[in-house]
Amino acid sequence: MADIQLYDATLRDGMGGGGMSLTAEEKLRVVQALDALGVHMIEAGFPASNPKEQRLFELLAEQDLHAAEVVAFGMTRRRGVDADGDQGLRVLAECFAPVCTLVGKTSVLHVEKVVRASREENLRMIGDSVAFLVRAGKRVLFDAEHFFDGLALEAGYALDCLRAARDAGAERLVLCDTNGGSLPPQIRAAFAIVGEALGPAPLGIHTHDDSGCAVANTLAGVEAGATQVQGTINGIGERTGNANLVTIIADLQLKMGHQLLPAERLARLTETAHFVDELLNRAPDPAQPYVGKHAFAHKAGMHAAGVRTDAQTFEHVDPAVVGNDRDVLISELSGRGAIVEKAAGAGIKLPAEVSDAFTRRVVERVKELEHQGFQFEAADGSFELLMRKEAGEYEPLFRLESWRVLVEKRADGKVETEATVKIWLGGERFVRTAEGNGPVNALDNALRDAIVEIHPHLRDIELVNFKVRILDERKGTGAVTRVLIDASDGHDVWGSIGVSENLIAASWDALVDSLEYGMQPGRATAPKAQVRAPGTVQGTSL
Amino acid sequence: MADIQLYDATLRDGMGGGGMSLTAEEKLRVVQALDALGVHMIEAGFPASNPKEQRLFELLAEQDLHAAEVVAFGMTRRRGVDADGDQGLRVLAECFAPVCTLVGKTSVLHVEKVVRASREENLRMIGDSVAFLVRAGKRVLFDAEHFFDGLALEAGYALDCLRAARDAGAERLVLCDTNGGSLPPQIRAAFAIVGEALGPAPLGIHTHDDSGCAVANTLAGVEAGATQVQGTINGIGERTGNANLVTIIADLQLKMGHQLLPAERLARLTETAHFVDELLNRAPDPAQPYVGKHAFAHKAGMHAAGVRTDAQTFEHVDPAVVGNDRDVLISELSGRGAIVEKAAGAGIKLPAEVSDAFTRRVVERVKELEHQGFQFEAADGSFELLMRKEAGEYEPLFRLESWRVLVEKRADGKVETEATVKIWLGGERFVRTAEGNGPVNALDNALRDAIVEIHPHLRDIELVNFKVRILDERKGTGAVTRVLIDASDGHDVWGSIGVSENLIAASWDALVDSLEYGMQPGRATAPKAQVRAPGTVQGTSL
Repeated sequence: MADIQLYDATLRDGMGGGGMSLTAEEKLRVVQALDALGVHMIEAGFPASNPKEQRLFELLAEQDLHAAEVVAFGMTRRRGVDADGDQGLRVLAECFAPVCTLVGKTSVLHVEKVVRASREENLRMIGDSVAFLVRAGKRVLFDAEHFFDGLALEAGYALDCLRAARDAGAERLVLCDTNGGSLPPQIRAAFAIVGEALGPAPLGIHTHDDSGCAVANTLAGVEAGATQVQGTINGIGERTGNANLVTIIADLQLKMGHQLLPAERLARLTETAHFVDELLNRAPDPAQPYVGKHAFAHKAGMHAAGVRTDAQTFEHVDPAVVGNDRDVLISELSGRGAIVEKAAGAGIKLPAEVSDAFTRRVVERVKELEHQGFQFEAADGSFELLMRKEAGEYEPLFRLESWRVLVEKRADGKVETEATVKIWLGGERFVRTAEGNGPVNALDNALRDAIVEIHPHLRDIELVNFKVRILDERKGTGAVTRVLIDASDGHDVWGSIGVSENLIAASWDALVDSLEYGMQPGRATAPKAQVRAPGTVQGTSL
Repeated sequence: MADIQLYDATLRDGMGGGGMSLTAEEKLRVVQALDALGVHMIEAGFPASNPKEQRLFELLAEQDLHAAEVVAFGMTRRRGVDADGDQGLRVLAECFAPVCTLVGKTSVLHVEKVVRASREENLRMIGDSVAFLVRAGKRVLFDAEHFFDGLALEAGYALDCLRAARDAGAERLVLCDTNGGSLPPQIRAAFAIVGEALGPAPLGIHTHDDSGCAVANTLAGVEAGATQVQGTINGIGERTGNANLVTIIADLQLKMGHQLLPAERLARLTETAHFVDELLNRAPDPAQPYVGKHAFAHKAGMHAAGVRTDAQTFEHVDPAVVGNDRDVLISELSGRGAIVEKAAGAGIKLPAEVSDAFTRRVVERVKELEHQGFQFEAADGSFELLMRKEAGEYEPLFRLESWRVLVEKRADGKVETEATVKIWLGGERFVRTAEGNGPVNALDNALRDAIVEIHPHLRDIELVNFKVRILDERKGTGAVTRVLIDASDGHDVWGSIGVSENLIAASWDALVDSLEYGMQPGRATAPKAQVRAPGTVQGTSL
């Protein structure tokens, strides 16, 4: 039995962030993923705020969840009506969810300026609403909105609100830093005041990241006695986001000694985090603690060497524990050990007697290319192709004869783009012309048109990001253009790079690497997360 | 006098993140922006690790900074050599920077497994190195690497390392959570132990975000006695990043009562944060505390209404205090005062009676364009043109009829690029075709060929930087391409922007703005920064 309850608010509070939207079916998949991770309570939303929420609750009612309880979320009754006359509370009472979270005001500022109720009326709104749902057979959590601000403003009243909820039968009081402005010392102090005023009561902590301290505030809450933590996957949410439950889980279990999840579930943390991002069509943050692509990346020579000697030297936890991977960033500074590790990760098998010569050649080649302006840290796909070439395991997707792009701004103001590629594939010559919204898109369209009959899997690969920079740091002959493309097949995302004096030529090289990497027969195909392809930018802008 | 010293590590530690790269001239612009913000110490890097760093130190040596001191960064001497025989220390001793930060080992694990020195030897390496630089007239900061891990492993030795640095004359001991695995209670406990063991000594705190607590750990350090905070702009850095100095500044000043920056400088926080992101070609994080585009965005109906009634109800601080804005628009330009100021700076003279209507129109236009994906923080040239248009002071350089670009990779492997422009200038029609090393360069050549006889000053304008990013945040029709170009006339550097579905069309728009801005007759010619024109990329790569 976990000593701290994990409460996920991704599907309700998390959806307040700009551009967040999931269908009922997608929300169901999030619930299943959270249940598989081992989250204890999942806030699904208000059962009837719109048809999508209704549909979600219908779907959820039929689910057999492993461990998680579904929570319905609503507000205390409106001013001036009885609890059983409040439509929202009736919906909560009648839904299948065993647990209801009710949010209510605890700050006099909000009671006066937002609800415009008397202080006594607000206390009755809290008590009546909780009692009504308890009578309906629900277990009730009380979300004390703006609690920390309210406590600072008028402590006695904020505490009275908590008492009203507790006395009406709420099983837990959740102290909410709704505006996200608190720092850890305030959180600790507030929990001490509540403990003193109310005696032992099950408490929870719910924070937002407006001061950049949402995770630390949550941990401070736990230190100070909270036995439930509320947060969202990857910290999504309105403004600066909610507390990141992913980080909190790892911190509580790996740093603070709370036994929340069995090891095999904790190892799903990275996969779960990326899955939710992909469903939401968000690029996973490579710098996210524990689960980001770069969270265990090592660059500087000494770091990488240290990690190989003893991972503890430069890693705060073992990445495998949270289902992440060590990533050694390749640069001319990196030693041979890093390359051996990368080759092994790519499934390139080398007999011991050639391994040394291979790594030497790869190091040389990387140095040479970095001197030309290449950089492989964000181009893992291109780097793997480079290794395959050196290992003799590379199969070109096609042989290029020529390509041509025409972009024209006509006198009527319209912009037209057209590309022609001439390639050889399986002994046959293909000439294809395609339009596009930009030169790279037109080249991509023409190239795919030529290849896709023989390689239909190419359809699954989408270009998801494109970056261009001018490098003038190259020694000697002057500046070059560097293009980075990220591509995805719906499971995996990889980077490729092209460097040339010519922007279009650099883009072409990166484009070809993107597709070739995605089509390499030996490529590790095990999906990291069962996800849809992220939103494509292909066809719209390159 | 600020009671807490702000130490920025963006240009050194921050550059450890994957894909981070700035030219020496761009780094200089970061230094100027940090100085304008009011940061006290700026870690510029090691003065000779490569020609780029050497060039940066040459540029910095000529700078008159307002408040910031430039810090050179290096390591304690190598094992087995004298301090004055250590090449790295000699470079530090000879560089112009008044302050040097030396990083040294303080954890027995690293001494044994990474440096492979004896414990005594490591203590001597620290003491000798600090003493050598102090003798060379430097003020020395000691970065105690892996201090918190080292303290947990063997407290006595970690403290001896601090003593060695202090006794050799280090003016400050900076406790570093190098692996980023600590939580605030550990930081507090460690500071208490150090305070007890060493007595009063100026301490600093340097953290990383691997546990999602870098900011809170820094604040905990300050609570526990640190009087210097180290961090990077936007928290960039290796793995999960360094502590975010932007958040720390706001928390310390607005939440913890430290007077770090005058109000008018604190109001540059948002601008500075976005400027650094743009230079790095990173999308600013909309959810970043204080400065993110969504940091003060209100979505839920009740929140928005509450904010209108009393902003305190749903805002933890006033966004204007950090130069941010409620709702949509983040840019510093959106404030009317800032626009009046910008207009004056551009030499646009407005009678008082139209000034109000003018600023309103500019704000509206900026909002509209930002909605389309424009962003003017790094495009001062385009913004000034926008103001001139609204003020009726804009003179187009020419009238476009059409343009066309052809890029071809021929069967012999050669890449050829050709552009044709058709324009009207002084009542005459010009049709010019030119080759180039890339499509933008070819367009630029053809356009200049047409214009330069009438405007010979055009020859002095060079394109010095070019960045492309795909934006998929635009509502509605999908992704767009944003191109940023920096141009220079040898005195001044200005930025321009183009946004379009088509990469070449966006580049054309930015190119035209670059040239038009440079040719505006009323343009203020006083150089903004005393830089030599950075190495040109024109003619070689676009």
